[in-house]
Amino acid sequence: MPAFNSTSTQVEQVTAFRHVAIIGLGLQGGSIGLAVQEFVPGSSTTGYDLSPENRARAAELGLVHQVCETAADAVRDADLVIFCVPPGAIGEAAAAIRDAIPADALVSDVGSSKQAIAKALRKALPDHLVIPAHPVAGTENSGPNAGFAHLFRNRWCIVTPPEQTDLVKLSALVEFWETLGANVEIMTPEHHDLVLAVTSHLPHLIAYTIVGTASDLEDVTQGEVIKYSAGGFRDFTRIAASDPTMWRDVFLSNKEAVLTMLQRFTEDLTALQRAIRVGDGNALFDHFTRTRAIRRSIIEEGQDDSRPDFGRGDHNGGVGRDS
Amino acid sequence: MPAFNSTSTQVEQVTAFRHVAIIGLGLQGGSIGLAVQEFVPGSSTTGYDLSPENRARAAELGLVHQVCETAADAVRDADLVIFCVPPGAIGEAAAAIRDAIPADALVSDVGSSKQAIAKALRKALPDHLVIPAHPVAGTENSGPNAGFAHLFRNRWCIVTPPEQTDLVKLSALVEFWETLGANVEIMTPEHHDLVLAVTSHLPHLIAYTIVGTASDLEDVTQGEVIKYSAGGFRDFTRIAASDPTMWRDVFLSNKEAVLTMLQRFTEDLTALQRAIRVGDGNALFDHFTRTRAIRRSIIEEGQDDSRPDFGRGDHNGGVGRDS
Repeated sequence: MPAFNSTSTQVEQVTAFRHVAIIGLGLQGGSIGLAVQEFVPGSSTTGYDLSPENRARAAELGLVHQVCETAADAVRDADLVIFCVPPGAIGEAAAAIRDAIPADALVSDVGSSKQAIAKALRKALPDHLVIPAHPVAGTENSGPNAGFAHLFRNRWCIVTPPEQTDLVKLSALVEFWETLGANVEIMTPEHHDLVLAVTSHLPHLIAYTIVGTASDLEDVTQGEVIKYSAGGFRDFTRIAASDPTMWRDVFLSNKEAVLTMLQRFTEDLTALQRAIRVGDGNALFDHFTRTRAIRRSIIEEGQDDSRPDFGRGDHNGGVGRDS
Repeated sequence: MPAFNSTSTQVEQVTAFRHVAIIGLGLQGGSIGLAVQEFVPGSSTTGYDLSPENRARAAELGLVHQVCETAADAVRDADLVIFCVPPGAIGEAAAAIRDAIPADALVSDVGSSKQAIAKALRKALPDHLVIPAHPVAGTENSGPNAGFAHLFRNRWCIVTPPEQTDLVKLSALVEFWETLGANVEIMTPEHHDLVLAVTSHLPHLIAYTIVGTASDLEDVTQGEVIKYSAGGFRDFTRIAASDPTMWRDVFLSNKEAVLTMLQRFTEDLTALQRAIRVGDGNALFDHFTRTRAIRRSIIEEGQDDSRPDFGRGDHNGGVGRDS
């Protein structure tokens, strides 16, 4: 059967996993399902979501080849099981299907904090090989409708293996994420949590805070806040529209690193506050000049769009924020 | 001369100003010059910039009909003079050409704080009619190259007239901004400064702070911050790339309102910090849920782009930020 041979050969070339099971069919899980179907021809995907509505929608959208009615059914024949549920729910979700996950299957996840999740998965699945991962990609949308196959393209996926691990399975997982379009970086869970605390968790906490502050004012109406949001505020509202359950769990599961970064942020904010109060224009100017360089580097490395204002609005850089 | 008549009639219809002088040819001044040339046929525009390089570039780009070598030459025959220089420089710039500004010309500006600027302009031009304004539109770019004619389209322009003013000239200024594509709102300078402190000045201060914090870490490299910036950090860097001189002046000229809003922000941040420290998941979840609604309203009112992640990257919502 040449057709079969060519397919199977192709599968060998593409990734070592022939059956990927996805637990949780939201933005991340749905996107992985679509990406595997598009980039890993010949492999099969099964999926499960706790919510019957999400399961039905995932089936309609074809996020995976087969949406199962139980998590156990979804993982039964899998050689790669990826948990795409909120960090706080992973331990329980994994423990519930411990006996259904094949002994030789590789277990991974997409959670935004890694130390707490690695610990929860080790506890839930003491006899399985677990290699946690975190694709640093997404949008402010969530749920099965938010997924798309190209979510991971040119984004980084951080893999945080335990000190002793199966290097063949590790390289297979790295290859898997590269096949989905991601650039893979390997680091310790401790370092991951520190890095993400500053590049992702603190920014989200700040955005959630300022949006809350603006909506609680008595001397400025919410209508005015919305009307004049192009002045800069609206950029924060996008981040502050992210999934509340996931973010609650992120902050609780990466508490120490977030509080450490928050402490440094508060010190810096206090220094700028003082500069404003005493009218130290030079201190403000020097700080504001320094922060410009980072923006340039981010654009140079392809991690953001160089079009002014993210290319909002029309040609010439679109209508945007200012002053 | 029917051609002339039709032109002049058209001018009556379009705006009451036949000669607009623009002092400062950066993002705002350059965009006004281009917008007047595109939307106010028959009117003439002159401009001046303190920097010889900016004057040369403005002439190359044709930001105004005529770039003058002195500010006095630019305003000599104007019936509308718009100062588009940093808030801290407006008083001096206006005083320097007091005698050159025609007695019946309307003087306005585009500054991001209004009480301090109104005071500076009153002091510099005691015998002229001054009606300050603030178009809430822009991008993170600055300088003559950043201007474009559609900058003000569907953005708000806040006009803050003194209590006693020339209503004919006021309505002419309102009409002028509407002709450039803006929606005009009239409010007191005091209220403007409070509203912008929360919708624009505080977000910028926060963004400048967190970008500085991230670049000063010793346990996370700047390379890592840049690499994983898609996790949310990059959105702050765009705002923190704005013009340092202008923003120094904004914070110094709207000090009281900014410090007031900063105080409220700090209180709210401390409350969330405490919720994380004590592990109060419900408090976090409730706060994060509340902030989602504002995002929806901003998109409904056309003040932002509903495409996920501001439509960065490719179809389906582009590659973006997450966890």
